[in-house]
Amino acid sequence: MGLRIRLLLLLLLLVGAAAAAAGSKEEKGRVGGGLRFRRGSGTFKVVQVADMHYADGARTGCLDVLPSQVAGCSDLNTTAFLYRLFRAEDPDLVVFTGDNIYGADATDAAKSMDAAIAPAIDMKLPWAAVLGNHDQEGTLSREGVMRHLVGMKNTLSRFNPEGVQIDNYGNYNLEVGGVEGTLLANKSALNLYFLDSGDYSTVPSIGGYDWIKPSQQFWFQQTSSNLQTKYMKEQPKQKEPAPGLVYFHIPLPEFSSFKASHFRGVKQEPISSPSINSGFFATMVEAGDVKAAFVGHDHLNDFCGKLDGIQLCYAGGFGYHAYGKAGWSRRARVVSVQLEKTGSSEWGGVKSIRTWKRLDNPHLTTIDSQVLWSRGSNEQLEVSFEGS
Amino acid sequence: MGLRIRLLLLLLLLVGAAAAAAGSKEEKGRVGGGLRFRRGSGTFKVVQVADMHYADGARTGCLDVLPSQVAGCSDLNTTAFLYRLFRAEDPDLVVFTGDNIYGADATDAAKSMDAAIAPAIDMKLPWAAVLGNHDQEGTLSREGVMRHLVGMKNTLSRFNPEGVQIDNYGNYNLEVGGVEGTLLANKSALNLYFLDSGDYSTVPSIGGYDWIKPSQQFWFQQTSSNLQTKYMKEQPKQKEPAPGLVYFHIPLPEFSSFKASHFRGVKQEPISSPSINSGFFATMVEAGDVKAAFVGHDHLNDFCGKLDGIQLCYAGGFGYHAYGKAGWSRRARVVSVQLEKTGSSEWGGVKSIRTWKRLDNPHLTTIDSQVLWSRGSNEQLEVSFEGS
Repeated sequence: MGLRIRLLLLLLLLVGAAAAAAGSKEEKGRVGGGLRFRRGSGTFKVVQVADMHYADGARTGCLDVLPSQVAGCSDLNTTAFLYRLFRAEDPDLVVFTGDNIYGADATDAAKSMDAAIAPAIDMKLPWAAVLGNHDQEGTLSREGVMRHLVGMKNTLSRFNPEGVQIDNYGNYNLEVGGVEGTLLANKSALNLYFLDSGDYSTVPSIGGYDWIKPSQQFWFQQTSSNLQTKYMKEQPKQKEPAPGLVYFHIPLPEFSSFKASHFRGVKQEPISSPSINSGFFATMVEAGDVKAAFVGHDHLNDFCGKLDGIQLCYAGGFGYHAYGKAGWSRRARVVSVQLEKTGSSEWGGVKSIRTWKRLDNPHLTTIDSQVLWSRGSNEQLEVSFEGS
Repeated sequence: MGLRIRLLLLLLLLVGAAAAAAGSKEEKGRVGGGLRFRRGSGTFKVVQVADMHYADGARTGCLDVLPSQVAGCSDLNTTAFLYRLFRAEDPDLVVFTGDNIYGADATDAAKSMDAAIAPAIDMKLPWAAVLGNHDQEGTLSREGVMRHLVGMKNTLSRFNPEGVQIDNYGNYNLEVGGVEGTLLANKSALNLYFLDSGDYSTVPSIGGYDWIKPSQQFWFQQTSSNLQTKYMKEQPKQKEPAPGLVYFHIPLPEFSSFKASHFRGVKQEPISSPSINSGFFATMVEAGDVKAAFVGHDHLNDFCGKLDGIQLCYAGGFGYHAYGKAGWSRRARVVSVQLEKTGSSEWGGVKSIRTWKRLDNPHLTTIDSQVLWSRGSNEQLEVSFEGS
């Protein structure tokens, strides 16, 4: 039984790889290694993979699956889900938001990371990663894990900004250019920020998880400010900042602000944020360009809630060696950013940002589709329930 | 009646000035304009003056005093309290923690500030100031008020650190040297930090008061770190950081953390902190050297409460043109920092930090005396109730 499932998985992997190699990728513009909106659809799509907890591959069993699923279940199920997801969504970028590997169970942290990320590389997808609190618990330090990540193929991850004194490892930003040949071709129409939310508090009197530090927030603020100035002051001048999306691992204390009626998705466990508020939510609000922040860490929470104009979103747990809930599908969050058609039928700036989740079930069911932000809308809660 | 009271006040002012001029100041070491602990007592004493709300002097009436006190009551009562307080406490430093003037009622902001601070200058006391949310509401901008303050006599206030990109006006630190002739003579045995907590939120979706920004926190963190390195790595090396005290105007959200049984003093109005947490409390906790933070802003609150090893203290309202509570004395907070005697009977580093408040009544009553911090004590709540 276990062998049959393994063979089936292997077959799926091979089919996936072949499909990816054969699939036409010419539509995606990645000029000079940079990211761009697609010409045909005017979209840019990000798949977020949270908490793979990858360890030793086929030798590492699954946690919290149904009794009928235990036999033969391993990290390879996580890998298979990646392939299926990537084929289904054909993303322009994959973001791994930490706890990519489960260091404590990984015999060789570098090999585990290589295996965990392999499907993205195999399918020639650009990808970026940040660290969680478990990535470093094996044979590599946090610095070591991040240095390994930035040396991997097809990655857009960076170690840290140069010439800046900053805490932690893996704070960087990516620009997504407008459609080639349009007025916004040389502008960043969408900004992606990645921060390392650390692992555990090092302050003796404060227990629990670490937090995003002033140095990181100062860098973020300056980066956002510079991007906004470029977008709005340089020709062709834009009226509003390009939207920003922020990715990191540990939820901010503000994720606890929502009542059940004010978010979309589920909250099935407490918000495991730091026990102290280091102010990054305030910093994002003040920056003015951020429309949504995406985290992982709490595998059983997968909601988005809007606070002070910013959508705070969980992805839900992805990996089979991570704790989960038997019968509750592993999942991923997809974000699709849509440009608007300008009068001249060209693509302009961002018009709306949608999100949905994909479940790892036979149909890769899409759930909780909603508009996170749209241009010109007011700041009230917007939830559309048309998703399946 | 009004005239008699004014004459009495004038007499008090003159007596105060004469006493100050005659008093021996030789014990206070202020080498090269710097601050120092006293040789005789091994102490350094700071008087905090919060919310003077000074406007046009004798022409500006008092708020919230008893009916019997209304006639003849003006900004000059605030001035008289300053003189009496300074004579009674003989401080080594006076800190004005914002809303020093009430801009909206001040015909000439610069003249109001000159008059408000005059007693400290007159008595040749070193003084420092930060801005509140009302200082700029008159004829000077926030920048203008701070530029005026740093140009005044005897001030140790500074506009902002040089060569650093920083928000707001009046972020600086002061070092307090050990006793002259001792091993710590050339070290800062006590560090004072001053920050501008701003005025009102400029983010459209966020109402209420402003907050301490990442740039300010980054500067604070670096400054604290550099001071700790100097103190502990340079000869004579010290085992623990020199204690830090922080002064600013608007209370942090964490001031709302206390139940009545867990602070000393009173809470008679809501905590008017920003509606968003910008993380400065976390930054102070992480820095590791801060033992207490002192604010004003809420005139009817005067408590100290300890959270995560840091005492969060209000001063209580000082000024007579500020809102208050009839029959509840205007007041000031005093902090006295005591050095320890080393084996060689020299003065060493800081041993303890005490605080009390002085009330503006005929006896200048001292209340709520308590130990804020002492070396080697655990991090539990320490409240001593021996004060009268």
